[in-house]
Amino acid sequence: MSEQTTATPIRVGVIGAGGRMGRMLIEATTQNPNTTLKAAIERQGSSLVGADAGEVVGVGVLDVQIVDDLPAVIDRIDVLIDFSLPDATEQNLRICADNNTAMVIGTTGFNDAQKSELAKASERIAIVYAGNYSTGVNVSLKLLEMAAKAFGKDADVEIIEAHHKHKIDAPSGTAYMMAEAVAKARGQNLDEVAIYGREGQTGARESGTIGIHAIRGGEIVGDHKVMFIADGEMVEITHHARERMTFAAGAVRASTWIVQQAAGQYDMQDVLGLS
Amino acid sequence: MSEQTTATPIRVGVIGAGGRMGRMLIEATTQNPNTTLKAAIERQGSSLVGADAGEVVGVGVLDVQIVDDLPAVIDRIDVLIDFSLPDATEQNLRICADNNTAMVIGTTGFNDAQKSELAKASERIAIVYAGNYSTGVNVSLKLLEMAAKAFGKDADVEIIEAHHKHKIDAPSGTAYMMAEAVAKARGQNLDEVAIYGREGQTGARESGTIGIHAIRGGEIVGDHKVMFIADGEMVEITHHARERMTFAAGAVRASTWIVQQAAGQYDMQDVLGLS
Amino acid sequence: MSEQTTATPIRVGVIGAGGRMGRMLIEATTQNPNTTLKAAIERQGSSLVGADAGEVVGVGVLDVQIVDDLPAVIDRIDVLIDFSLPDATEQNLRICADNNTAMVIGTTGFNDAQKSELAKASERIAIVYAGNYSTGVNVSLKLLEMAAKAFGKDADVEIIEAHHKHKIDAPSGTAYMMAEAVAKARGQNLDEVAIYGREGQTGARESGTIGIHAIRGGEIVGDHKVMFIADGEMVEITHHARERMTFAAGAVRASTWIVQQAAGQYDMQDVLGLS
Amino acid sequence: MSEQTTATPIRVGVIGAGGRMGRMLIEATTQNPNTTLKAAIERQGSSLVGADAGEVVGVGVLDVQIVDDLPAVIDRIDVLIDFSLPDATEQNLRICADNNTAMVIGTTGFNDAQKSELAKASERIAIVYAGNYSTGVNVSLKLLEMAAKAFGKDADVEIIEAHHKHKIDAPSGTAYMMAEAVAKARGQNLDEVAIYGREGQTGARESGTIGIHAIRGGEIVGDHKVMFIADGEMVEITHHARERMTFAAGAVRASTWIVQQAAGQYDMQDVLGLS
Repeated sequence: MSEQTTATPIRVGVIGAGGRMGRMLIEATTQNPNTTLKAAIERQGSSLVGADAGEVVGVGVLDVQIVDDLPAVIDRIDVLIDFSLPDATEQNLRICADNNTAMVIGTTGFNDAQKSELAKASERIAIVYAGNYSTGVNVSLKLLEMAAKAFGKDADVEIIEAHHKHKIDAPSGTAYMMAEAVAKARGQNLDEVAIYGREGQTGARESGTIGIHAIRGGEIVGDHKVMFIADGEMVEITHHARERMTFAAGAVRASTWIVQQAAGQYDMQDVLGLS
Repeated sequence: MSEQTTATPIRVGVIGAGGRMGRMLIEATTQNPNTTLKAAIERQGSSLVGADAGEVVGVGVLDVQIVDDLPAVIDRIDVLIDFSLPDATEQNLRICADNNTAMVIGTTGFNDAQKSELAKASERIAIVYAGNYSTGVNVSLKLLEMAAKAFGKDADVEIIEAHHKHKIDAPSGTAYMMAEAVAKARGQNLDEVAIYGREGQTGARESGTIGIHAIRGGEIVGDHKVMFIADGEMVEITHHARERMTFAAGAVRASTWIVQQAAGQYDMQDVLGLS
Repeated sequence: MSEQTTATPIRVGVIGAGGRMGRMLIEATTQNPNTTLKAAIERQGSSLVGADAGEVVGVGVLDVQIVDDLPAVIDRIDVLIDFSLPDATEQNLRICADNNTAMVIGTTGFNDAQKSELAKASERIAIVYAGNYSTGVNVSLKLLEMAAKAFGKDADVEIIEAHHKHKIDAPSGTAYMMAEAVAKARGQNLDEVAIYGREGQTGARESGTIGIHAIRGGEIVGDHKVMFIADGEMVEITHHARERMTFAAGAVRASTWIVQQAAGQYDMQDVLGLS
Repeated sequence: MSEQTTATPIRVGVIGAGGRMGRMLIEATTQNPNTTLKAAIERQGSSLVGADAGEVVGVGVLDVQIVDDLPAVIDRIDVLIDFSLPDATEQNLRICADNNTAMVIGTTGFNDAQKSELAKASERIAIVYAGNYSTGVNVSLKLLEMAAKAFGKDADVEIIEAHHKHKIDAPSGTAYMMAEAVAKARGQNLDEVAIYGREGQTGARESGTIGIHAIRGGEIVGDHKVMFIADGEMVEITHHARERMTFAAGAVRASTWIVQQAAGQYDMQDVLGLS
């Protein structure tokens, strides 16, 4: 996983330059020796338009003025990193496809029409589209798949995730990804076997179910534990995220990989060589 | 907490001698240097009536024949240990009170009439009545009380308990005891602040709530973790029970303590000197 | 991993029938629907010779008299399970090879001569020789290999194992197996990178090292945790053994697999289809 | 533990304004509604002398110029927070004592002469001197004391601490504080019972010893777990620090408390009302 410095850095653009994730993406771009920030885009009307992206983020002047118009800067970049909202990403997909620019997408919540837009774009350009860009989460997903196959339904699976008190939904997207990985490896439909919380006269645990529990509190960045509980023993696979920068660094890493790929849709497992 | 051998062992009777808990109580009685089994009672019609209690349990002949009639053996014992059912315990309370015999009660599920029966009996005899007889659980309850007071409502509290797949209700009685200990220390009514499971658009975590999560799987004897999650740090108090014998040994220990007390109702905190 | 009942149960012999592990192996043989105990061997001079193996173990009469002479019973069995001592196993290897009887070996501490004896025997008979027979440990070893490859030396690896207070050596054999799995996957020699305990002015952590820590206390059956600590995140793989029966059940399971294999030396990964 | 806004904010000075801890102390001073930064001191020759402390830290202009001379600003402050080096703190103790200014000291590594200097100063001024300023760690120390007393030597105690890979010594000061709290509660001398790491033929665990294990890896801020391992059960008390700001915020909180105390030496337990 060591990064080698390439001759010419990959030229990166970042959507939502002034948002929390956009700021981290910009910082991560400056930290990765193989990437250089060449475009920073904000919504129209943002007071940050015209400011230097590096100064806004606090990493020093980068000589990249924040703009509100992707087409105006699309020819300056090899790859666009987009962690924004479905409607904005839908537009950006078309612009990138028209300009043959690779994409790394972390936007969530696409509707079906938007998903098919993404599929269509991926016939023309190379796109990484992943629910989670951390190396550790993606390694964990592979471990889960292997453990689920080895234990089969003989082990009871329970998932515990913990996030900060501000999170407004549950369980986390990553917890769902983990539950899906287990269900799929066991030939199950997650919707039919997932259990969220237990209270009252529940009866004995039904074999083959997957319990999913959401802890909320303080400023926990994101912890996930998957338990495979057999009769006399137990295996646990746990992931702790300590800094959100982990996700930004993973997305930037994905951007250096995707520029070398043929048109198509990829996920982080592909980037990490785990698939 | 070291046990010293006393001159004359305490004479113990055990209700439900052939049941899982009764067997462990009998074994624990033989392991505690300060107790000796002098009566073992089963329900009428049990095929074990007449058999030697020690042989049934597998600890060798104890010269104690299992009987189906408590009054017939009540004068042979100093204390009765009763982990049975509410109706049976209600009858035993009267018999013990009439014969001035101390009791250690682990029965759960009393209705209000039975609770007042228990209170009435405790005016005449000394009774230990506890939801959990393990030293560790009772120490944990005291730790929880202290931590809850120190953190106040500044820390978000989440409780995770794990038990075997056969358990038919949730959360565990011990998890409730722990949640109650926290709520009481913070001046809260548990019913108003308890949250069981989170799924969907939950909104941000409401300050002051207590999350309670029940894991079920395999043959887990009983784990409880209480998390105090503050903004930049977290304190966890965890109890792992590895063997059910822990509870039996605690009840037998309670029996050596209760015989020296005045009439009244006590709990395991009293026995351990934690209150 | 589900067990299917075969037409004819595998006929099993157990070495050290009166020892702690031998007793569990006998019990596990009776619990596995595909095996039947046909021989139980003890050392010469044992007072148990002549007793019924089932009665000694407490599972009822099995009509298998404990003997002190393996050759006398070798023709009654398909496979011999041997968790004894190196010298005894060395002799048993020759007897099994001469009689074309498969073996499942859990003995540890072989010297070089004994290891080559084992290799020689495996040219004639099928032998499972594993450091740990639990499904969970073997699944964990595979997970560790995969995680170590995915993280490379970018992650700091630390191993924590916990065992009961009676254990006289450290770290556990399983902890070594786990450390070896990580070292091998990273192309390292464990002896050169293992660190046991840290105290005083240690200096900063040297990249690529593997810390191994041994907890001792109470009656802990066996816990192992391997941490892959990257800068902003961490993945942990944890195994908890709750009952020693897990290991006996795994060995008996291996015995049903090995009787169908060609001559050769196999480990538990082969039995579980993980290799 | 809720903070109430007082009429007049406490005027705080911070030693080592440009260092990592000094910067966090300054930031914490701006976040606490009851404190205001009035002096920021650096060593002579620092290039930061003359700069605005707020701008250096990145919290905006605070109109507090960094100076290299404590006496020049001592009359502007009610309390000095000093997390520096023993020799510097020794001098600052004299200056504060002469000017009747309270102190909050987080410096470690005093020699005996310096400790007696501190004792002498505390006859004239109020001083908080603590090894760890986090609420959670101090709550944990109280919990440990209570648990150690309740379990006595019947439970085996093992401590595991984890810190980042850059830490150059082991175990952590906080781990020592926790071990001391247990040893003291059990009437032991820590030096006689502490065990650091186990390897090879260790023999069975000696009753009454305290195992201390130091994990190092990645950027772990600081985790501590103390296990009380009894035969059939276990209680664990765990503290996770997620941000170093926790310690700075605790020190600033201590500064608002110490200005109201009589001369004397206090620790964080006193500040939190836990003693």
